[in-house]
Amino acid sequence: MAQVSIDLDMKRVTNKEFLEKAIQCEPVLKETMVKPVSIVDIKKSKDSYPQAVKVDDAENMSKYHLKKGDTICLDFGRHQVGYVTLKLSSVGSPQDAPAYFRLKFGEIAKEMTENSEDYDGWISRGWIQEEFIHVDVLPAVLALPRRYAFRFLEISVIDTSLKWQMVVKDVACKAVSAVSQEDVPCIKVNDGLLQKIDQVSLLTLQNCMQSVFEDGPKRDRRLWLGDLRLQALANYSTFRNMDLVKRCLYLFAALTRDDGRIGACLFIEPDYIVDDTFFFDYSLFFVAALYDYYMESGDKETLKELWPSAYRQIELTQKEFGEENLIDNQDSMFCFIDWTEGLDKQAAAQAVYIYCVKRGMEIARILGDEESAKRLAEEIKYKTEASLTNLWDEKQGLFVSGKERQVNYASQVWMILAGVVDSEHGAAILDQLISLSPDKKMVSPYMNHHFVEALFMCGKKKEAIDYMKYYWGGMVSLGADTFWELYNPENPAESPYGSSIVNSYCHAWSCTPTYLIRKYFEEDK
Amino acid sequence: MAQVSIDLDMKRVTNKEFLEKAIQCEPVLKETMVKPVSIVDIKKSKDSYPQAVKVDDAENMSKYHLKKGDTICLDFGRHQVGYVTLKLSSVGSPQDAPAYFRLKFGEIAKEMTENSEDYDGWISRGWIQEEFIHVDVLPAVLALPRRYAFRFLEISVIDTSLKWQMVVKDVACKAVSAVSQEDVPCIKVNDGLLQKIDQVSLLTLQNCMQSVFEDGPKRDRRLWLGDLRLQALANYSTFRNMDLVKRCLYLFAALTRDDGRIGACLFIEPDYIVDDTFFFDYSLFFVAALYDYYMESGDKETLKELWPSAYRQIELTQKEFGEENLIDNQDSMFCFIDWTEGLDKQAAAQAVYIYCVKRGMEIARILGDEESAKRLAEEIKYKTEASLTNLWDEKQGLFVSGKERQVNYASQVWMILAGVVDSEHGAAILDQLISLSPDKKMVSPYMNHHFVEALFMCGKKKEAIDYMKYYWGGMVSLGADTFWELYNPENPAESPYGSSIVNSYCHAWSCTPTYLIRKYFEEDK
Repeated sequence: MAQVSIDLDMKRVTNKEFLEKAIQCEPVLKETMVKPVSIVDIKKSKDSYPQAVKVDDAENMSKYHLKKGDTICLDFGRHQVGYVTLKLSSVGSPQDAPAYFRLKFGEIAKEMTENSEDYDGWISRGWIQEEFIHVDVLPAVLALPRRYAFRFLEISVIDTSLKWQMVVKDVACKAVSAVSQEDVPCIKVNDGLLQKIDQVSLLTLQNCMQSVFEDGPKRDRRLWLGDLRLQALANYSTFRNMDLVKRCLYLFAALTRDDGRIGACLFIEPDYIVDDTFFFDYSLFFVAALYDYYMESGDKETLKELWPSAYRQIELTQKEFGEENLIDNQDSMFCFIDWTEGLDKQAAAQAVYIYCVKRGMEIARILGDEESAKRLAEEIKYKTEASLTNLWDEKQGLFVSGKERQVNYASQVWMILAGVVDSEHGAAILDQLISLSPDKKMVSPYMNHHFVEALFMCGKKKEAIDYMKYYWGGMVSLGADTFWELYNPENPAESPYGSSIVNSYCHAWSCTPTYLIRKYFEEDK
Repeated sequence: MAQVSIDLDMKRVTNKEFLEKAIQCEPVLKETMVKPVSIVDIKKSKDSYPQAVKVDDAENMSKYHLKKGDTICLDFGRHQVGYVTLKLSSVGSPQDAPAYFRLKFGEIAKEMTENSEDYDGWISRGWIQEEFIHVDVLPAVLALPRRYAFRFLEISVIDTSLKWQMVVKDVACKAVSAVSQEDVPCIKVNDGLLQKIDQVSLLTLQNCMQSVFEDGPKRDRRLWLGDLRLQALANYSTFRNMDLVKRCLYLFAALTRDDGRIGACLFIEPDYIVDDTFFFDYSLFFVAALYDYYMESGDKETLKELWPSAYRQIELTQKEFGEENLIDNQDSMFCFIDWTEGLDKQAAAQAVYIYCVKRGMEIARILGDEESAKRLAEEIKYKTEASLTNLWDEKQGLFVSGKERQVNYASQVWMILAGVVDSEHGAAILDQLISLSPDKKMVSPYMNHHFVEALFMCGKKKEAIDYMKYYWGGMVSLGADTFWELYNPENPAESPYGSSIVNSYCHAWSCTPTYLIRKYFEEDK
């Protein structure tokens, strides 16, 4: 899985006018002071997923006199994103040596049982939320400069001296987000698990909504286009913070490669800069995200201004098609789709293209750009025909992908979402898919979201709800109060990074049940 | 060796007037900006004491693109005490993960080869000058809040990501001390090694002279009375900062136990507070330190004001004597003298008492307190007679100590320094001591200082100089640019703490050659 994109020769261009508009939409973060609610014990267990067990009230924390080797673990009640301040003191003889301790922040209980020293994965161990701190003079107020995403905070005293012990007098977190949950109505669904799933979705989204829509506040803390599209959908159903979506759209349009290609992700510090990673699907999703934004906001000015940037993504991705109007690229990195090992992405990428060009055509029509609309209609026609001619396997009743004619979930789901088949046909395909259960399934909650949306679109409401309860409900049953970057119901500890200690447990692309329930289930109850 | 003094029931009293005078003498520290001079390589070797080997000029440091596992070691040319700022940057793709690195500060090259994880000693590992740091956004200026004592700084990159590398653009140290060497004349001695020993002494003293006279700027960074007495003597011969001595004397007199006993050490942060450690010899040295201060400064006001505090130490230590006017205490912690394992301290403590009471008597005379002077003269007489009657072994020609009549270095040295024997007799004792070479020798440079002073006092100038060259010169030959807390010529890596990684390599009590040379050798050249 250790695949990264590096292009040191990439030339970047900045549209300053767009950047200025993005900066004008920068949110003022809402701040909430949060205190730990209890002192907990978290034990490793072979048989069960680790859970926190309360051992004392948080207000008793200053009664613990911590000597070398002592540990105290605080539970903040639910997932927080923010800045932590500790009030520390000493008891015993005068402090004759620096206090030396480790702080370990964890989003879930299991993380607290994992040893950072054992980490041997391929992404940076710098993401492990652990600090080693010396304090020369106690008492002290220690305001940590970094932002953490966590529910649990473990304080382990590495050393004091034989003469004194450390005391944690108080700990507080200044939690931050661009939104607050106060104005979001509860779902009108009389189902405890769905209500819980909705709440966990909301907290996930809230904690990812910072200066931009981040993918995960623990890791990578960054604006990705694929995540943005789903976050924006969930946001429209809940917080309805239109400015934050607008800001992110303008950022992507402002910061491109010199040929106008929009990156898969971008950074806002130290300067606004686009990464040197590009995905076929993510670039195209700029079209879909712009379309969704207009449909929800009615902001025609932004639609008009950003339409050329969106259209440019369609132009640039056209070169991935061969003479037969089929995707030609066999490099697994060219398109994201999902993390499934060995996934052939031809059919899914073909469908994503059709999905996005359809939305591009709608934008062209809205803006009265009939020439583009006509050209895009032709694109849709050719690419759809090519899909049905070459990628549809009549015998299997499923779409196939690539030279090996691979059958996988992603192809079926995206062909349905793209409307290459109608909902009746789609329903049959989904039945056949579930019945066949091919090897190449789904890995990310992101792909699982698209599967559930396909079920809803094909009228399979019960299956969609059942699957949400199985998949997102599975995380809830393991104690999640935010949804995870990755969840395999058959192996909850799985990680694409070589170790789950760097997994993100509050991840934007997993927050969509609140959108799916509110859009497809709640309304017509 | 894991002996510490803890007295949680101790009652402290503060003389506010004295404390105010101490605060008025607080120095404004002189600041000097220091840059590293080279990039070095330090290797572990079984055969030799580790040395730094230059591999590049410091100005090339930004050419090193540091990826996961890479290390760069900077040499600041000589020992520094101060605050370090690093300018950090990144090269490659945008920084997509926190920079995570370790900073390790070392006073000597050998320290850099020692692994902190292996440390298993009894004093706090918090003293190891090592920081683990995350920087979320590069470029960054990292101003470390703590003060370090070091010559070498190793920067080890624990992780970046596959996409970028860290660059150290610049490093600077704001070195601090209460004094500067500019006004101290060189010694008038035509001997390269003695000149070098003098320079190393001066830097040791300078780097220990901070807000108070510290024992060591790496560890314990604290005002100890035993160290103060020697630092003050070296200071009188060199920097002549009288206010810093005055400040320390007032601090000790201001912060005492409720019976007036002066502590072995005290803290100045977070508040001025005396420790719960008391040594027979250290309390008494307040008398000697006050006497020395007056003799050098002529500050009769301070002498007069602090004389009752000094006198009280004599009164309080009298209870350690039995009916025969001999020290009765067999607890090795009651008196410091030296770190020699199994050292019987009776005779040395008896001599320290006589040494200090003699100085007390002088003070009483100077202040016209004839009654006290008379009483102290009697004390001196009784204790001296008791020493000669009970502790002198005519057959061996040496003093003995304790029930086991132990022969050791400390007893002879202190009986000579206390003037219990005259210089001629002392010379014979020293000859006999060196010839007999008893098991109980000397461990600390502090004790070695007193041995050399005894040699000088007995007219053994050549032996004294030769011994200084052997002992302090030995450290110089191993690359010392400040003198160490502990040095055993036969085992330079020895530590009283279970591991030399926590040893202090710039330690006040080792700075005395500059005093010894200037007082006993230079003057009469």
